[in-house]
Amino acid sequence: MGEPYLLTPGPLTTSLEVKQAMLKDWGSWDGDFRAMTASLCEKLLAIAGDDGGDFDCVPMQGSGTFAVEAMLGSFLGPDSKTLVLVNGAYGKRIVETLNYLGRNHAIIDKGDYMPPRGDEVAAALADDPAITHVVLVHCETSSGILNPVGEIAEVVDAAGRKLLIDSMSAFGALPLKVGEIKYEAMVSSANKCIEGVPGFGFIIARKSELEAAKGNCHSLSLDAHAQWVNFKKTGQWRFTPPTHTVAAFMKALEMHEEEGGAPARLARYERNRDVMVAGMRELGFETLLKDRWLSPIIVTFFNPDHPNFSFPRFYDLMKARGFIIYPGKLTVVDSFRVGCIGRLDEQVMRNVVTAARESLEEMNVDSASPPESALKERARLAA
Amino acid sequence: MGEPYLLTPGPLTTSLEVKQAMLKDWGSWDGDFRAMTASLCEKLLAIAGDDGGDFDCVPMQGSGTFAVEAMLGSFLGPDSKTLVLVNGAYGKRIVETLNYLGRNHAIIDKGDYMPPRGDEVAAALADDPAITHVVLVHCETSSGILNPVGEIAEVVDAAGRKLLIDSMSAFGALPLKVGEIKYEAMVSSANKCIEGVPGFGFIIARKSELEAAKGNCHSLSLDAHAQWVNFKKTGQWRFTPPTHTVAAFMKALEMHEEEGGAPARLARYERNRDVMVAGMRELGFETLLKDRWLSPIIVTFFNPDHPNFSFPRFYDLMKARGFIIYPGKLTVVDSFRVGCIGRLDEQVMRNVVTAARESLEEMNVDSASPPESALKERARLAA
Repeated sequence: MGEPYLLTPGPLTTSLEVKQAMLKDWGSWDGDFRAMTASLCEKLLAIAGDDGGDFDCVPMQGSGTFAVEAMLGSFLGPDSKTLVLVNGAYGKRIVETLNYLGRNHAIIDKGDYMPPRGDEVAAALADDPAITHVVLVHCETSSGILNPVGEIAEVVDAAGRKLLIDSMSAFGALPLKVGEIKYEAMVSSANKCIEGVPGFGFIIARKSELEAAKGNCHSLSLDAHAQWVNFKKTGQWRFTPPTHTVAAFMKALEMHEEEGGAPARLARYERNRDVMVAGMRELGFETLLKDRWLSPIIVTFFNPDHPNFSFPRFYDLMKARGFIIYPGKLTVVDSFRVGCIGRLDEQVMRNVVTAARESLEEMNVDSASPPESALKERARLAA
Repeated sequence: MGEPYLLTPGPLTTSLEVKQAMLKDWGSWDGDFRAMTASLCEKLLAIAGDDGGDFDCVPMQGSGTFAVEAMLGSFLGPDSKTLVLVNGAYGKRIVETLNYLGRNHAIIDKGDYMPPRGDEVAAALADDPAITHVVLVHCETSSGILNPVGEIAEVVDAAGRKLLIDSMSAFGALPLKVGEIKYEAMVSSANKCIEGVPGFGFIIARKSELEAAKGNCHSLSLDAHAQWVNFKKTGQWRFTPPTHTVAAFMKALEMHEEEGGAPARLARYERNRDVMVAGMRELGFETLLKDRWLSPIIVTFFNPDHPNFSFPRFYDLMKARGFIIYPGKLTVVDSFRVGCIGRLDEQVMRNVVTAARESLEEMNVDSASPPESALKERARLAA
């Protein structure tokens, strides 16, 4: 057996070709590397559907959270007030970041996994004219919920406010074309739906916002305006880029294109999800979310209500069979998560279900049904 | 011919083994990866000579500058006043960072390449009792000068102040043992003397300083205290680590140990420098610095004073021969730089000299002597 599949929302399983692209050292100052960075930005802008040249792409070193902080710190000026739509850990992290930055904000907190809806956002914006920006997490991987980005974008635009999107785990598969959904900036990272390896993120932002961001940022390293200006002036990253990760990402972008771009990738991920969820349901597992909100990125399952079930043991048994799954992140009920993204197809997902069945058998768990309390919680969501 | 050698202060030429360590995907939550991170920190603390367990290691995503900003932002509280010793671009960057952070500071600026000395630092500290911290760049790669860290550490300690060191390009080769040189914290990065690939840096700091840093940091992502607490509690990085880069770094640490640790690495780099500088001097090139201040990390040479010499052309000719050199970063005279670190030995350095000779010949430059003005500038330094 080779290395285990990573069924997580990133770092995820990448192709061997992507990893092999890291077998070369690059001088970050050299023209060849500068050309690679320029091409990377072009390809990302194409995925974002920027035909008009109104947007630009600013890669940022560090994890995805670094890129989110760069977006918030750079685009939210001292007089801004931001409405944060929270329904999980990543929304909460945005609030935490704004607390670090000392930026004024309001919160709509929907709990662990209820989606924020257009009407309530519209009402909040109508109630508080001081609000200048809204921040939304596109796919909240702590539950796996796919938030209704189009619906939110519409009401934000109608209210004349600006939308920033954390599309970390969604961009590159789920649609987020600048011509279809109105936003000022979004972030994602190398090791999500483009299927690169972790080491940097990127901001895609309206040029007018990048220009206006001068002097806003609290951090030298995370200053998206300064990074953008430097790319335009020299073609170089301001500070040492993760050269090997960038080379891997270029290969990943090439494979993304060959597969048929975001629509083809979305189709594969949806098929991954559908095959895996159907199989898990056959074993008695129940998903936290109704199908409507189930993202093709990662799916949350309730832990079985069985005395022999233990998540650490289930994790180890799955790992021994070649699959690394992900613990849950809910506060109310016990759960675990299975990712659908990365270099995986439906055959892999069928094997995941087989591994889950065998693992349950080995633990002497004859039913994977969740406890009543979990189903009640889900019914509350449906209401 | 294979890929070119990178004669830069990083990203640098790494071994194939280090790059091959990136051919596997790691789950960042998984126990195997957590064990790798723990071992990484242990090995770095051993290189820093922490026998007493007074120090801890905090890896930080991003480039080296991100780690420097994390150190400054986390350890310099709102009431601090910092004396920054500047003699080049990296010292200036520290000042720029403190301006972003709004932290009070004073500066001793020695220009492009004069070393800060103990007596002037002692005098500045005596003059201004408000100064709580001193920040020093160990090896300032913009000129290649090796700053007198021992001398500075002594006067800072004698004056009862705290020393923070940017040892980015020096740690892992030049001595910086916590028992020999007194400091509170230092930073370095993966792609310098340990010879890993770029993607993260690390802070080695006194535990008491890490504890006291709670609540200081301006940035969620760069908060060294929060990162440290999370490592202690969960063994995990707070946010997605550059898993492949970490795996490469583990291999690099292993090879560092096998070579004989920092002393052996220093000896190889010094030999690289000596062979390369001797050869370049034979061609007529002159170094900016006197031998005493010449680091084994990177060496600055004056551009030849010859009408046929052009640096872009010289760069291309050297690259065509398999060597990527580095442009100068001096404000007063034209120069270029040649790095001595990375997976290179003296035979490679001899080939560098041969390539330089051939490149000069191809440009019809019959003498590599610098202009009078450069030599005058150097004489001023010697005075």
